[in-house]
Amino acid sequence: MTNLKGKDILHGNQFLEKDIEAIIKMASNIEKALKKKDSFTLLKGKILATLFFEPSTRTRLSFEAAMQRMGGGVISLGSVEGSSVAKGETLTDTVRTISQYADVIVIRHPRTGSAKEAADAVSIPVINAGDGTGQHPTQALLDIYTIYKELGSFKELVVSMVGDLKNGRTVHALVELLSLYQSRFYFVSPKSLRMPEEITSHLRKKGIKVEETEDMLKAANASNLIYMTRIQKERFTDLTEYERVKGSYIIDETFLKKLRKKMTILHPLPRVDEITPEVDRYPGAAYFRQVKNGLFLRMALLSMVFGKTL
Amino acid sequence: MTNLKGKDILHGNQFLEKDIEAIIKMASNIEKALKKKDSFTLLKGKILATLFFEPSTRTRLSFEAAMQRMGGGVISLGSVEGSSVAKGETLTDTVRTISQYADVIVIRHPRTGSAKEAADAVSIPVINAGDGTGQHPTQALLDIYTIYKELGSFKELVVSMVGDLKNGRTVHALVELLSLYQSRFYFVSPKSLRMPEEITSHLRKKGIKVEETEDMLKAANASNLIYMTRIQKERFTDLTEYERVKGSYIIDETFLKKLRKKMTILHPLPRVDEITPEVDRYPGAAYFRQVKNGLFLRMALLSMVFGKTL
Amino acid sequence: MTNLKGKDILHGNQFLEKDIEAIIKMASNIEKALKKKDSFTLLKGKILATLFFEPSTRTRLSFEAAMQRMGGGVISLGSVEGSSVAKGETLTDTVRTISQYADVIVIRHPRTGSAKEAADAVSIPVINAGDGTGQHPTQALLDIYTIYKELGSFKELVVSMVGDLKNGRTVHALVELLSLYQSRFYFVSPKSLRMPEEITSHLRKKGIKVEETEDMLKAANASNLIYMTRIQKERFTDLTEYERVKGSYIIDETFLKKLRKKMTILHPLPRVDEITPEVDRYPGAAYFRQVKNGLFLRMALLSMVFGKTL
Repeated sequence: MTNLKGKDILHGNQFLEKDIEAIIKMASNIEKALKKKDSFTLLKGKILATLFFEPSTRTRLSFEAAMQRMGGGVISLGSVEGSSVAKGETLTDTVRTISQYADVIVIRHPRTGSAKEAADAVSIPVINAGDGTGQHPTQALLDIYTIYKELGSFKELVVSMVGDLKNGRTVHALVELLSLYQSRFYFVSPKSLRMPEEITSHLRKKGIKVEETEDMLKAANASNLIYMTRIQKERFTDLTEYERVKGSYIIDETFLKKLRKKMTILHPLPRVDEITPEVDRYPGAAYFRQVKNGLFLRMALLSMVFGKTL
Repeated sequence: MTNLKGKDILHGNQFLEKDIEAIIKMASNIEKALKKKDSFTLLKGKILATLFFEPSTRTRLSFEAAMQRMGGGVISLGSVEGSSVAKGETLTDTVRTISQYADVIVIRHPRTGSAKEAADAVSIPVINAGDGTGQHPTQALLDIYTIYKELGSFKELVVSMVGDLKNGRTVHALVELLSLYQSRFYFVSPKSLRMPEEITSHLRKKGIKVEETEDMLKAANASNLIYMTRIQKERFTDLTEYERVKGSYIIDETFLKKLRKKMTILHPLPRVDEITPEVDRYPGAAYFRQVKNGLFLRMALLSMVFGKTL
Repeated sequence: MTNLKGKDILHGNQFLEKDIEAIIKMASNIEKALKKKDSFTLLKGKILATLFFEPSTRTRLSFEAAMQRMGGGVISLGSVEGSSVAKGETLTDTVRTISQYADVIVIRHPRTGSAKEAADAVSIPVINAGDGTGQHPTQALLDIYTIYKELGSFKELVVSMVGDLKNGRTVHALVELLSLYQSRFYFVSPKSLRMPEEITSHLRKKGIKVEETEDMLKAANASNLIYMTRIQKERFTDLTEYERVKGSYIIDETFLKKLRKKMTILHPLPRVDEITPEVDRYPGAAYFRQVKNGLFLRMALLSMVFGKTL
């Protein structure tokens, strides 16, 4: 039996298939139960501390809402300027201090490995909400949950991942989880933003079919779903290159018309120009449902690290 | 029957007289009930999201306290720097995202019309807490509630509005509501900060008596109440003009002695110099009671948008 | 009978011995009860407002967690830029406004005397969480509680206080409380950071034995406990002097080996270099337990100002 009680949630690869299935099941149970009631008391008396050393409105609010909907309370570090961190305190001391007040910590930090470092320093569960270019496992899990809900399964899929595949930690973690389930991938990106070689070769070694291409339409038409990501201007030194590259990966009505079948479109958000607002009305545009699924998924995870299930 | 369930609160002019009376009644019921109990569970399991794209301590804390006193929870966007907004996300996408986590949104935004734009983008109720020089309807409603409590009625009054009538959205919204009830107005301001012509002419067309003057004492002595506002230094290019103008609209003990009768004094706060601290002891100085009434009024509104009444 | 109901907590010297004992007792009862349950409902429906005009992650989060663990809610001023304070509002007006929304206020402010000023302006209890170089009474009380737990008593102790004794308000308040109980002190600091003359002479007048020294080891070996504090770089104009001074007051394994008996080590945190991480494993290193005790102590104080006891 999967038991996340007292466990840290640090990395996509810590989960076995049965763990993922147990988490999906719990999120689904919560979602169903919420149709009949507004909230739960499973986590009554528990306190979540959110420590965002890097801002992320979406992820922080998602966790804070999830904790409160499970009946718990929230304390939040707020902005880092002027905090004890600014006085020269180590990350280890900060989290050890906060762990005296809270029952679970959610941390985002710009340094890869920092979530693990925090988890090692304290006795309460730590959830990684993004550590540098490292991991963001709850995003990957909510993506899986969304795929499950949109497509009925998250197994043996053909998935087009599009955009900045080099820097996107969301994409890296998701590929890792999906590859547990015999998925095949199209990696669609400009040359300068290709999926890191160690990831593609690691996938191929596991027998996963991977095709790299710059042709988004061809890839999409061979796939069950498109996972779009934002191409970040600040990664480019040559802005004309940025404009050229950005313009080639845009989902708009014209693109939708060229699709040969109904397609599920995901995006971790925020988006800028890569999906035009008119696409929001397309039935397969699932990115705002994906946001909502993040709430259910985080309610599930928070419950499970306290050993509570529905 | 007035029913605000699922409705947005965007503009003073959305309310009919019976709506205003229902809101006042609900605020009054809550105020009475709070004498016997500390809090309610009417909104248990509901989450309020506060989105202040422009800081407003008073209004934000008032809503957050109100939501918690009704039994609900709160998530808050916090400062905007570094949030997804800073990453180029549109207001529409931000509120659609947050609406996946919360059950009601309170928004303050510097752009006129932004609250309406937010409300159109989401399916949960949106409450406008100030949009640029546009509206701030909950302030106008709490002012009405205060007038009702201080004077026993908010109908057929003579009201002196004093200070910066040009830029004060509080004053604009309040005039709109009071004019439903056959009030008469003195608009007391320096020439450069007069009430916008479209408002005065609109009032006169409705048969409302309006007199513009620079003489605060004369106006006050003909009125039931004075509504003071702050004259903002930053509106002036000529600072000697600012000093001259500011000095002519100050309520202090000397001014109080010249009043021919007891007067109710309101102010949306914060104040700077326009009401001196010695005035706080004057029985008619109602501006801190006005703050308290904001709490009851917002508890009422939050309940009513969920279809809950007392 | 000690009754803190409706009282402000402003200054270490406001407490009689029986008050301190009642507070310690209440904290201890809460700590014991928390072993059997997660939280309390004693403060259900009450709202705490935290007003930190100067950041202090640790103290703010401690109070916010404490309030929620007692069943209450929290509103928080957040950062001061752009708030009504920035619009020129006086501290008095700000706290009077907030007191309309909340049932108790915790304030930190850079100006000595500001907490008293706030308390005088409002009718709800105000708790001083640090006012400039003045007081920080809840820190002193949690230190006392920690000493009681670590040593079995907080009476007739020999205490070494080490580091910046000139500027450390924590140390000043703690000395005041401990001196009620016939303690003796070693004040260990560089010459430039000695305990203020008025404090040492005041202690001596009360018959308290005080010895000033620069020799930390000698003092430690004659004491029951060491209270370490951080030497702040920003106090020095001569940085070589800073480096020299800092280096002489460091607790590390080498120092621990020279101690002739088991020693209790406290520190208000954050620390920088003055206690090395290897010391954390030393059984007498009580500074993280001290953090936890702060939670219990603040749960006790918040309850007691509402007249609630366990």
